[in-house]
Amino acid sequence: MELIYTGKTKNVYRNDAGQTVLEFKDDVTGEDGKFDPGANQVGLSIEGVGQKNLGMSAYFFEKLNTEGILTHYISSDLDGNFMTVRDAQIFGKGLEVITRYRAVGSFYRRFGDYIEEGAPLDTYMEVTLKDDERGDPFISQDALDQLGILSKEDYETLESLNAQIADFIQAELATKGLELYDLKLEFGLEQEMGQIMLIDEISGGNMRVFKGDESIEPLALAAYFIEG
Amino acid sequence: MELIYTGKTKNVYRNDAGQTVLEFKDDVTGEDGKFDPGANQVGLSIEGVGQKNLGMSAYFFEKLNTEGILTHYISSDLDGNFMTVRDAQIFGKGLEVITRYRAVGSFYRRFGDYIEEGAPLDTYMEVTLKDDERGDPFISQDALDQLGILSKEDYETLESLNAQIADFIQAELATKGLELYDLKLEFGLEQEMGQIMLIDEISGGNMRVFKGDESIEPLALAAYFIEG
Repeated sequence: MELIYTGKTKNVYRNDAGQTVLEFKDDVTGEDGKFDPGANQVGLSIEGVGQKNLGMSAYFFEKLNTEGILTHYISSDLDGNFMTVRDAQIFGKGLEVITRYRAVGSFYRRFGDYIEEGAPLDTYMEVTLKDDERGDPFISQDALDQLGILSKEDYETLESLNAQIADFIQAELATKGLELYDLKLEFGLEQEMGQIMLIDEISGGNMRVFKGDESIEPLALAAYFIEG
Repeated sequence: MELIYTGKTKNVYRNDAGQTVLEFKDDVTGEDGKFDPGANQVGLSIEGVGQKNLGMSAYFFEKLNTEGILTHYISSDLDGNFMTVRDAQIFGKGLEVITRYRAVGSFYRRFGDYIEEGAPLDTYMEVTLKDDERGDPFISQDALDQLGILSKEDYETLESLNAQIADFIQAELATKGLELYDLKLEFGLEQEMGQIMLIDEISGGNMRVFKGDESIEPLALAAYFIEG
């Protein structure tokens, strides 16, 4: 396999069959050695977290594929920390799609004048640009359209698809007594059909999950979904 | 008249007839002694600017009223710097509605990875909360709805009304060879009819205007619209 990109938490390869393969690394985003799914830099490295994130992602991607929801997931190799995926064209230089069920994190920091910390939200979605230099700014449907990143029609499709997936993940977590507070997903355009699909990963590093009042860290969360 | 509120650039009174009267002060918002319509604090005081802002506002409000667009404007007294207005109920603790025709200011600072500074935009609107402590955060249609500040339906009405007014102001400026780069307006709910209406002011302190490459400062801008 040929290494074609080195990312914060993943490396990207092209295999001999011409497929894209993601390698899940042991790095998680955070600040000051503390896990924070909203942070831009790698905050700490935890041995085995790559495999756990891959295992948890495979669990959810396989369920979503079974539900008939298009994702980039083809197969996974837990021994090598590899996930083989469909090629995707990202929107602009990359978007993050955040779904919130509770007013915590940056939502509360921005809108705390109008809501209590932790109050419930109704599958609230917002989009940020992947742009470390500018602090990953929030961007509206209209701005995405005017900047040629995502048309208004594609935004509606994305919003509907994201709600379907996020609510599915929320319900899966609930069956294990876990509550999803917020979630960061990524989407891209599938190359053959030109359809919007879920890409990246679905793991503890991309969500805030609580059991009662207790925050469930990424490794502990993965243990709910994979064996060993 | 009884003083009921002291603001950054206006004082608010109740007159003997029970009407609300705004007094336009000589303070403009800015930072480091430089005018900036997006700034939160009063940056400088310019003698006569209150009267100029009132005169320019009266010019535009009278034209908008003639066009059949509901505004809070009833009458003005240029000698006392007073504007008598209809009572309005603001949304939440106050919103600012920004319309952009050029990618400058905070739009360019946030989205400069995707657009050249000064590139044209198509009547782009965004809303911020008036919340000095939290830096007047941008807020989406969905968040405004979920926080109980403005329903999705009222947002659509606001968007349409704002575009109509902003484009009208842009066209008026164009007749004098001036180009509107961006504009900050405020809206409220008229109390008797429950309709959304334009409130606050329409003056140099709330817009960036250029003549060719030259920025037109508030006082110079007002001179295009009032005599003396």
